[in-house]
Amino acid sequence: MLRPHLPQSRLVSALTGRTVDPPPIWLMRQAGRYLPEYRAVRAKAGSFLDLCLNPEFAAEVTLQPLRRFDLDAAIVFSDILMVPYALGQKVEFVEGEGPKLKPLREAKDLARLDQVSVEERFAPVYETLARTVPELPDGVPVIGFCGAPWTVATYMVGGGKDQAAARFWAYRDPASFQELIDLLVETSIGYLRGQVKAGAGALQIFDSWAGSLPNDEFACWCSYPTRAIVAGVKATYAEIPIIGFPRGCGASAESYAQETKVDAISCDTSMSLAYMRETLQNRLAVQGNLDPLLLVTGGAHLERRTKEILDLLSGGPFVFNLGHGILPETPPEYVARLVELVKRKA
Amino acid sequence: MLRPHLPQSRLVSALTGRTVDPPPIWLMRQAGRYLPEYRAVRAKAGSFLDLCLNPEFAAEVTLQPLRRFDLDAAIVFSDILMVPYALGQKVEFVEGEGPKLKPLREAKDLARLDQVSVEERFAPVYETLARTVPELPDGVPVIGFCGAPWTVATYMVGGGKDQAAARFWAYRDPASFQELIDLLVETSIGYLRGQVKAGAGALQIFDSWAGSLPNDEFACWCSYPTRAIVAGVKATYAEIPIIGFPRGCGASAESYAQETKVDAISCDTSMSLAYMRETLQNRLAVQGNLDPLLLVTGGAHLERRTKEILDLLSGGPFVFNLGHGILPETPPEYVARLVELVKRKA
Repeated sequence: MLRPHLPQSRLVSALTGRTVDPPPIWLMRQAGRYLPEYRAVRAKAGSFLDLCLNPEFAAEVTLQPLRRFDLDAAIVFSDILMVPYALGQKVEFVEGEGPKLKPLREAKDLARLDQVSVEERFAPVYETLARTVPELPDGVPVIGFCGAPWTVATYMVGGGKDQAAARFWAYRDPASFQELIDLLVETSIGYLRGQVKAGAGALQIFDSWAGSLPNDEFACWCSYPTRAIVAGVKATYAEIPIIGFPRGCGASAESYAQETKVDAISCDTSMSLAYMRETLQNRLAVQGNLDPLLLVTGGAHLERRTKEILDLLSGGPFVFNLGHGILPETPPEYVARLVELVKRKA
Repeated sequence: MLRPHLPQSRLVSALTGRTVDPPPIWLMRQAGRYLPEYRAVRAKAGSFLDLCLNPEFAAEVTLQPLRRFDLDAAIVFSDILMVPYALGQKVEFVEGEGPKLKPLREAKDLARLDQVSVEERFAPVYETLARTVPELPDGVPVIGFCGAPWTVATYMVGGGKDQAAARFWAYRDPASFQELIDLLVETSIGYLRGQVKAGAGALQIFDSWAGSLPNDEFACWCSYPTRAIVAGVKATYAEIPIIGFPRGCGASAESYAQETKVDAISCDTSMSLAYMRETLQNRLAVQGNLDPLLLVTGGAHLERRTKEILDLLSGGPFVFNLGHGILPETPPEYVARLVELVKRKA
């Protein structure tokens, strides 16, 4: 069993169940469009995908928020669609419209996926991590990530309100949908292992569309595949902490935590602090869940809500974060203010 | 205090806390595009709004599903945007795109709303109800409804991913957003009272976007306005049962039930049956929550899931329904099969 290079860090302490005071903080999409220096690199890089595949530029934007703010983690600049890309599916990011994939619609389309060159296609992400690690402040790890199989599958299958295309496939032909999910589990295990090997000190699995699953499908397509990824990665790297983010899962968060064996659960904005403390934090570390809109509006409401979150959750294993990604219109000075508040320097 | 005309009905028995065997069933959007006879009336009526405002046609489509299926309730054919329409906001339904309203953006836009002719604009809905009631089978009530203030406000304010426009207004200027919500509460109380007076035997309040509220805003913009509507309607019609549908509210369902004092809670597809039984059904009647996609796919999975729902929930106060509206591509014969299964005639 390999041991990852895990520097002492406030983030890893919290993720592995310790109460850290003040709690560590990082922000989903902290490397992004709200920063002018990000927009400058993005303009040079070409498309969003070009930026993800350019290790020099991707490492640069990964590091940018750490230069401005006293954050406790970096997160590698990449995208959850790197897995379909690595499987040879055509992925485009259309400006202002989000990702466009040539959709898989049924069992026979799975044959279009190419598993031969997967690791080669992941290589730029590994190189981004390798370039990032030496530049990080002491005690600040870089988080690697992937999308959860369900969420990645919804993009691969494509379209439909409430992820209907993927849900219909899962109902109509569960055996072939399971094949797709199994392929994503295997590919994601390899991808996350590769990211740890390249220097990631923690991992997050983003299940952005977990909330669109009816409850009886949630275990099958969300919890079990995530559990398989956690087990597969930990078989190689037992000590790497893994955060799960089953967005919109509501009261299924408890069973998700039990079944997946993630070290920490990231909670979306709708999750109540009482539920996070009483039901989740007894069992595992919690991460979250400030509304990203409050980082756009700022002011007294931002201060008040930040203090509420800290008051309720900082007495146990806790990582301060947003409930969803930071918005492009966020003024960077409000991020600075938030970090000060969490670090109790304000 | 007026007493509504409440015929003995299986629906009202279940909604008021009795265990009814077999449980009553109706389906959200049961009067709709999946029925060829609906499409025929719709083609004659003109626009969707024209159909809502035509009591003869609206009563006809309200009754159509009752002629095909052994359902325990009708629901008046109307739309949750009837309230903004009655307040004089321009409402259009663009084919294939959903509703378009001329958005209110800030406090001063509230002056554009016209409260003088509200009841006159509601009159066609009341007439639809009055025409429907005499045509209903014995013991089958017609349900009246409105959108919850939060959800209606998201449409009035318009646009943005995750209802961002309304959420930003609520953060930036809570006092004027409260004015809008208060106006919607008052208008909805009048509207629901009018529907009971016209013959509605139960009411449902649809909060389709409850799940987009961060937890600390949920009580303020979802539970409290709903509680005010429930109290306002019950001040006049103490015995009318009211169902709340806070879609996507997750683990906040318990506090919603406590705070709003609705008689029954309608649960979306993502809600676990265990949570519905153990946390909700002890406190109030539950309604739900078959995935509408299963009514499109049919087959063994539909049968199995229907039986699971019945096994877990029919031992207490329960109304069988979908977790969201029926889909236009639903084969009517699968609806017939579902009703047979629930009535244990299959």
